[in-house]
Amino acid sequence: MRAIAFGERLEVLADVPVPERPAGEALVRVSLAGICNTDLEIIKGYLGFRGVLGHEFVGLVQDADDQGLIGARVVGEINAYCGHCEYCAGGVFTHCLRRTVLGIHGRHGAMAEYLVLPERNLHRVPASVPDSEAVFTEPLAAALEILEQTQVKPSYEIAVIGDGKLGLLVAQVLALTGARVVALGRHPNKLAILAERGIETHGEGDAYDRKADVVVECTGHPGGFLHARSLVRPRGTIVLKSTYHGTSELALSPMVVDEVTLLGSRCGPFAPALRLLQRRLVDVQSLISAVYPLERGLEAFEAARKRDNIKVLLSNQQADPSRL
Amino acid sequence: MRAIAFGERLEVLADVPVPERPAGEALVRVSLAGICNTDLEIIKGYLGFRGVLGHEFVGLVQDADDQGLIGARVVGEINAYCGHCEYCAGGVFTHCLRRTVLGIHGRHGAMAEYLVLPERNLHRVPASVPDSEAVFTEPLAAALEILEQTQVKPSYEIAVIGDGKLGLLVAQVLALTGARVVALGRHPNKLAILAERGIETHGEGDAYDRKADVVVECTGHPGGFLHARSLVRPRGTIVLKSTYHGTSELALSPMVVDEVTLLGSRCGPFAPALRLLQRRLVDVQSLISAVYPLERGLEAFEAARKRDNIKVLLSNQQADPSRL
Repeated sequence: MRAIAFGERLEVLADVPVPERPAGEALVRVSLAGICNTDLEIIKGYLGFRGVLGHEFVGLVQDADDQGLIGARVVGEINAYCGHCEYCAGGVFTHCLRRTVLGIHGRHGAMAEYLVLPERNLHRVPASVPDSEAVFTEPLAAALEILEQTQVKPSYEIAVIGDGKLGLLVAQVLALTGARVVALGRHPNKLAILAERGIETHGEGDAYDRKADVVVECTGHPGGFLHARSLVRPRGTIVLKSTYHGTSELALSPMVVDEVTLLGSRCGPFAPALRLLQRRLVDVQSLISAVYPLERGLEAFEAARKRDNIKVLLSNQQADPSRL
Repeated sequence: MRAIAFGERLEVLADVPVPERPAGEALVRVSLAGICNTDLEIIKGYLGFRGVLGHEFVGLVQDADDQGLIGARVVGEINAYCGHCEYCAGGVFTHCLRRTVLGIHGRHGAMAEYLVLPERNLHRVPASVPDSEAVFTEPLAAALEILEQTQVKPSYEIAVIGDGKLGLLVAQVLALTGARVVALGRHPNKLAILAERGIETHGEGDAYDRKADVVVECTGHPGGFLHARSLVRPRGTIVLKSTYHGTSELALSPMVVDEVTLLGSRCGPFAPALRLLQRRLVDVQSLISAVYPLERGLEAFEAARKRDNIKVLLSNQQADPSRL
């Protein structure tokens, strides 16, 4: 099958074997996959991953132990867990000590004609949610993880730093709480998506120094963290949503004096994300900058790196079940 | 009056004017004052404070608007707040935007014969608590602040890094919850104080790599933070209790992947600290390494810097009310 893989370099391969389906896992024909900033970091060497990329997808189940799943249109949680370690015992599957992660760690990903993933990781997509929206379930769940981790009061002021893929989802999700959300970014075309939905935005030229109860760092670079530090109020919370190479210089004492909470935040719950998509409470369509066929993966990655683009999708319309 | 002050350098002065008592404040004759690591940092230039040092004290009220306070033996919360700003309105007085802080910021401190502090900051010391224990109320309250900020479950494993003044109090306070507390330090004589109370300790030679739900950083240097990072489990919390000059290199991505919470923690509640002292649930007597008269302040500071010493106190037995 075709697949976009990272080894020595990023490549579109034509003859990757279709993955074998282990017991308990489903073989899924990928319809659409999304390119995430984490993918852009991986091809710079982040996490040392080698293999088929991609962890955002929607697809159709081709084969599974559970016959009822076959033919279902699904999205999938990306952490495949052991079910036995202390984290699994505590129900915290995303932190399983023996986890593999789709397209990120120890498991080939979704930028391919087919993928395998444990059946228990799959969620059926409601009929009213098109593929082009369902493919946002994973990053939308990651945005919702903030609300799993910390209380966001309707009376809060919230600053979201970064108007990229994740920042636009985070701002929309947090604004649903009734809190006053201000999105800070550098891309007028991206901020406009939020402004159209009535969310306050501030571009690069605007002076902005209001203190926030919660500041969410979504820029994916260390400068964003320092910016977040400057905006959080005493006893406030900084949420770190981006993963990237490198370190940041952190003055610890002011964190102590101001009793600031710093919260790392990763994968979130899929079911609520699907509910928000079904109820059309989050605009994801406006985030799609381009859709490329899988075989034009290199162009797609180039497009995903472009400053004015937001989400770039990979389509797998030509996947042919007869080639299994 | 005599006072220990930091200006160009640390000095014991003999002729500092007794502070004027503003309305709403009490004049307190200091009986005992403690030297804290923050004082040792201030004389290295931390926070830029100039003036009479000291924020840990017990003393007798000499004069006050509230006549009932006169003669009372008191300890005092160190943040003098405005009562009107948004933090005060929310009851978060320790973060008052216009606060002065005893011996730390904009207000002369307790290493003197007399100090002034708002009457509302004072707490009466129960008769059964001697001065030599009451002087620990402030740092004990700071240890309790951890429990104000985050839930510590009895089933938790907790690592306390640093066996200095604050670390020994933090370990004792957290062990009262029933949690399994392990104190990590480099001073056998200090760890022994905890071991005697049945708290697990690990010295420098012991390999220690058990993951903890909560790790409290009490060392006062950046290496302690990196150590804390290595010990905290996924979704765990690092509490920063020390203030010091300088920054630490922080790799942000692993904080995100592991969804770690980093919590800055400063001043805490006095009333619970006094209750713990009254009920003799925390051993503070063993922490006293030396008591110096105020006029031997320079020797006292030298002693406080010595590796094997813990708490050094300054006594003001010769304070003479007739000199007012």
